[in-house]
Amino acid sequence: MSIHSVARNQSHLVWDNSIQPILRIKSGDTVKFDCLDASNGQITPEVTVESVASLVFSNLDQVNGPIFVEDAQPGDTLKVEVLSMKTADWGWSACIPGFGLLSDEFLEPALKIWKLNTKEGYAYFNEEKGIKIPLNPFAGEMGVAQKEKGPFSTIPPYNTGGNIDTKHVTAGATLYLPVEVEGALFSMGDGHAAQGDGGTAIETPIVAELRLSVLKDRPYTRTPHFKTPAINVSNEEYYCTTGIEPDLREASRAALRHMIQYLVQEYDLDPVEAYMLCSVAGDLRMHEVVDMPNYLVGMMMPSSIFSHRRS
Amino acid sequence: MSIHSVARNQSHLVWDNSIQPILRIKSGDTVKFDCLDASNGQITPEVTVESVASLVFSNLDQVNGPIFVEDAQPGDTLKVEVLSMKTADWGWSACIPGFGLLSDEFLEPALKIWKLNTKEGYAYFNEEKGIKIPLNPFAGEMGVAQKEKGPFSTIPPYNTGGNIDTKHVTAGATLYLPVEVEGALFSMGDGHAAQGDGGTAIETPIVAELRLSVLKDRPYTRTPHFKTPAINVSNEEYYCTTGIEPDLREASRAALRHMIQYLVQEYDLDPVEAYMLCSVAGDLRMHEVVDMPNYLVGMMMPSSIFSHRRS
Repeated sequence: MSIHSVARNQSHLVWDNSIQPILRIKSGDTVKFDCLDASNGQITPEVTVESVASLVFSNLDQVNGPIFVEDAQPGDTLKVEVLSMKTADWGWSACIPGFGLLSDEFLEPALKIWKLNTKEGYAYFNEEKGIKIPLNPFAGEMGVAQKEKGPFSTIPPYNTGGNIDTKHVTAGATLYLPVEVEGALFSMGDGHAAQGDGGTAIETPIVAELRLSVLKDRPYTRTPHFKTPAINVSNEEYYCTTGIEPDLREASRAALRHMIQYLVQEYDLDPVEAYMLCSVAGDLRMHEVVDMPNYLVGMMMPSSIFSHRRS
Repeated sequence: MSIHSVARNQSHLVWDNSIQPILRIKSGDTVKFDCLDASNGQITPEVTVESVASLVFSNLDQVNGPIFVEDAQPGDTLKVEVLSMKTADWGWSACIPGFGLLSDEFLEPALKIWKLNTKEGYAYFNEEKGIKIPLNPFAGEMGVAQKEKGPFSTIPPYNTGGNIDTKHVTAGATLYLPVEVEGALFSMGDGHAAQGDGGTAIETPIVAELRLSVLKDRPYTRTPHFKTPAINVSNEEYYCTTGIEPDLREASRAALRHMIQYLVQEYDLDPVEAYMLCSVAGDLRMHEVVDMPNYLVGMMMPSSIFSHRRS
């Protein structure tokens, strides 16, 4: 298996299946990505709040890639193993006018520059008030090209992934994406040192190592699925299906429907059994509620309820 | 402090501030509730799926009470400490036509009777397939009377609580409810042995001990808040605010807004700081998405980020 590298400037600003790949790899190869923060370098540790007000939106949320994975065909699944994820020693959070769940109630721009203690894994929000946040580095954006022609903004999440902003996809996690075009055309970016579910994260440059593999036997992966490690944000391993829709209730329904499909396929349950199992053991979480027009809801099933484990 | 008892038949079928209290207690007293399951005894371990099809809906979701807590006045907060919560040795789950997130896709009634191993804390979903669910007993319904006159169904959740179906409110948790009428008029019911977020739970009779106290210094509790113990469904302590609205996005916004209000009051942050803290550290969870017309979304903040702890 080979190890490949992607540099900071090897990025693109829209999802578009006509963008030429910067790299061709074999299934099972590892790629090391060096990524700027989601402001594409517009925000640095030295800037002030004026830089938030003057952000050039069309330059935001670049993703590094795309990577052509040989043998990936429409209908396949791209398995993305997150081998490592390292942040810079700084990050930023902001209230960006027009952005976020309460953007109509917080109208003024605001900026916070964080100092990240990457060695011990925390950042002080306010040292005097004793508020510190555990670091949980992950990439907000991981996705593949869509089958539809033309450019698609990198801001909303799609069935092919993209800005899924799911904090459980940290080092040790595995993300499954539906392949819609030959070679998959995978890209990633939007480093986060930590994130809740309601606005901007601690945005930061990251260096990530990912192993990309093609799976032929998961036709039911038509939206992102992921498996979390039993570390960081939970002490349990979970398997998660997602629903991505412009309506939050429909996104919830889709996440549930996809978990039922998965349980039927992998655990030999009938749909009614699977629906009941979701209703007694599955968690519905809003992973992404701020990047319109699409919401991303996850249905998370703890692996510990299954004595006969799936790989 | 006194200990009081409420019997199975001391229940009511709607929230209505004109219902006469069955008990008057002092702030700080403990009440032991003996509650039938949410079918109000219509489903027993012996019944078949026909009983699901013929459920009398108007008899469902009874709550035991109401309890008049002396000194509770509109504007106060009722603190509900969950001291213990014990289930029966059986439970049921069902697909009930017309009920649940995918009710339009699962049209036929279905019923599952569970055997609960209360000693070791699990129930087999399917022993042969090695699927078992850890028990996590809690009451789906805990609430107080609303200030508005007239009957309100016990099925949806309200700002005064009711069918909040929040699995984190288990033994060791504390629930905070806004008092809207003199005496608060607290009731509870709807025992669950375990629950996900998408349909019916493992419904079961329960016996619960609750300590009810009046707090005068939390004017910001105008929807349910709760504090979870660092056990069972999470290994962390969380403080949770809720949003309860007919629209899921508005419920999410309300949960976030209420957490900001709480952080501003209790941790001396300004609103923008609090908003940013939510966006990097708060979890949005859908606790109740099946009991129309209201959704209940929680914003959960891990207590561990605060070095200077609140009680």
